[in-house]
Amino acid sequence: MNSRDAFQDHYPDDLNHCYGCGSRNEQGHHLKSYWDGDRTVASFLPGPHHTAIPGYVYGGLIASLIDCHGTGSAAAAVHRAEGRPMGSAPPVRFVTASIRVDYLAPTPMGVELRLEGEIAEVGERKVVVDVSVSAAGKVTARGRVIAVRMPQSMVPGSAG
Amino acid sequence: MNSRDAFQDHYPDDLNHCYGCGSRNEQGHHLKSYWDGDRTVASFLPGPHHTAIPGYVYGGLIASLIDCHGTGSAAAAVHRAEGRPMGSAPPVRFVTASIRVDYLAPTPMGVELRLEGEIAEVGERKVVVDVSVSAAGKVTARGRVIAVRMPQSMVPGSAG
Repeated sequence: MNSRDAFQDHYPDDLNHCYGCGSRNEQGHHLKSYWDGDRTVASFLPGPHHTAIPGYVYGGLIASLIDCHGTGSAAAAVHRAEGRPMGSAPPVRFVTASIRVDYLAPTPMGVELRLEGEIAEVGERKVVVDVSVSAAGKVTARGRVIAVRMPQSMVPGSAG
Repeated sequence: MNSRDAFQDHYPDDLNHCYGCGSRNEQGHHLKSYWDGDRTVASFLPGPHHTAIPGYVYGGLIASLIDCHGTGSAAAAVHRAEGRPMGSAPPVRFVTASIRVDYLAPTPMGVELRLEGEIAEVGERKVVVDVSVSAAGKVTARGRVIAVRMPQSMVPGSAG
């Protein structure tokens, strides 16, 4: 039960401007997340400017990728739990309530990073996703994203 | 005992390429952190592309700013604890071992963000910094950065 479209390809147009993963953000990272069995996966090749110490990837970028992969995985997990495909109405969009990242080793530049997400908890309002980041086969960071349903007040055009 | 130079202005040239705060990263954020009494402060105006949901700042950017303000504050705290100004030898450079960010409220776009750091713990190898982010006077995120001395193996040109 893998997916060919990315989770983010199904975000509603008016909620698809995220710098990390929005298709409609011209300057953003355009992270794309997919199912791979019961896990969610994404990959990303950092640019040469995404440096921390020369030779190593900026930790803020790693946190950003974990964040977007986490909220995307949360939306996908709810769709799967409800037995309906992504893109079906009503749309599901999560935001981050809390993120924690442990940097286990420096992440080398110049190789594609692989993110793997594990759905730790699926609730009506809250989903918890554990995400690992690996480079050249070695896990260099682990994160946990606590994602919550986007408040109605954040919907563009809402009165909230 | 406030500072006029930013902490990051004193990073050694070969360790000053960080995307978040390195003076030598042309495409980066160039975050600048300072003492304000016993606290550390920084400010940052997100660009229009640093969007999450339209109207609100991307959480990954907020985590990135907390990260860089945290490691900069850690270096400054060690200098202060040792009673010597930043820029004096030997240089002190911290990297992030762990970061946690709680997003308390959506962060509005279009206003300068203010970061305030509080040094929670200063050890020889490890410094803990609590950082708040506020927008228009309201705290929208709180983070904790566990910073550790940069491993010698990360120094450019080291054999490690």
